[in-house]
Amino acid sequence: MPTVYITAPPESAESIAERLVEDRLAACVNRLSTSSTYRWDGEVQREDEAVLLAKTTDEAYDALVDRVREIHPYDVPCIERFDESHVLESFAGWRAENVA
Amino acid sequence: MPTVYITAPPESAESIAERLVEDRLAACVNRLSTSSTYRWDGEVQREDEAVLLAKTTDEAYDALVDRVREIHPYDVPCIERFDESHVLESFAGWRAENVA
Amino acid sequence: MPTVYITAPPESAESIAERLVEDRLAACVNRLSTSSTYRWDGEVQREDEAVLLAKTTDEAYDALVDRVREIHPYDVPCIERFDESHVLESFAGWRAENVA
Repeated sequence: MPTVYITAPPESAESIAERLVEDRLAACVNRLSTSSTYRWDGEVQREDEAVLLAKTTDEAYDALVDRVREIHPYDVPCIERFDESHVLESFAGWRAENVA
Repeated sequence: MPTVYITAPPESAESIAERLVEDRLAACVNRLSTSSTYRWDGEVQREDEAVLLAKTTDEAYDALVDRVREIHPYDVPCIERFDESHVLESFAGWRAENVA
Repeated sequence: MPTVYITAPPESAESIAERLVEDRLAACVNRLSTSSTYRWDGEVQREDEAVLLAKTTDEAYDALVDRVREIHPYDVPCIERFDESHVLESFAGWRAENVA
């Protein structure tokens, strides 16, 4: 099952998380505070952001990515898929039930 | 080697982390604060939790999952396995030495 | 593409993140606060640390590991590679452009 790693500005992160759960594109989203260091226009920058870890299913992954692109304030958002090699069966069942 | 992703209530997270290390089921556990958005009984909910990232071995993985299920306050805890594709050799050796 | 998971003392974490981006070994590094529980000299210890998640490329991975080992204050640092199974194409392109 996929966990989707998304970064977002602190002020948008909660509404992205809520939208993904409301729209049944993720069963659960964990939001963590982060400080991001990156290169932009050739300069090293630092910015407070949030990391979202969205728990979804194979079937819903593409629709989740499309929704994030639609509502995310960045033109080039960080959206990455990591696949679990094992998930506790009852939790996997709960996830599948709560994703459309 | 597996990293196990577990979420827990803030008040239980530290004792779960300590127990896994005491019982030599993990060499190290990183605990991070998170805000979780999820669907429960059809409603979108939000709760403060902790994410635990437990560094263990192939051999100890099943026993770690059993222990978490035994001591975790939730009936359906989030327990997920992610496998590293490479680990610094000296760190992998330290991990293996500190897991039973 | 690899995400590299590194832990570091809070006072070193920001300079490690900056160095990796300055040296074009990572396009972006997310830094998160963590409390680590681990076994050292047979005793369970707890310490505040940071988790760094460095976004890099296949080609730069080995050089990134070498640089972290060179500048990291620990003899046995936690350096682990996790491979994404999918990355948004525009973000993957941005990452590749910003890594040497």
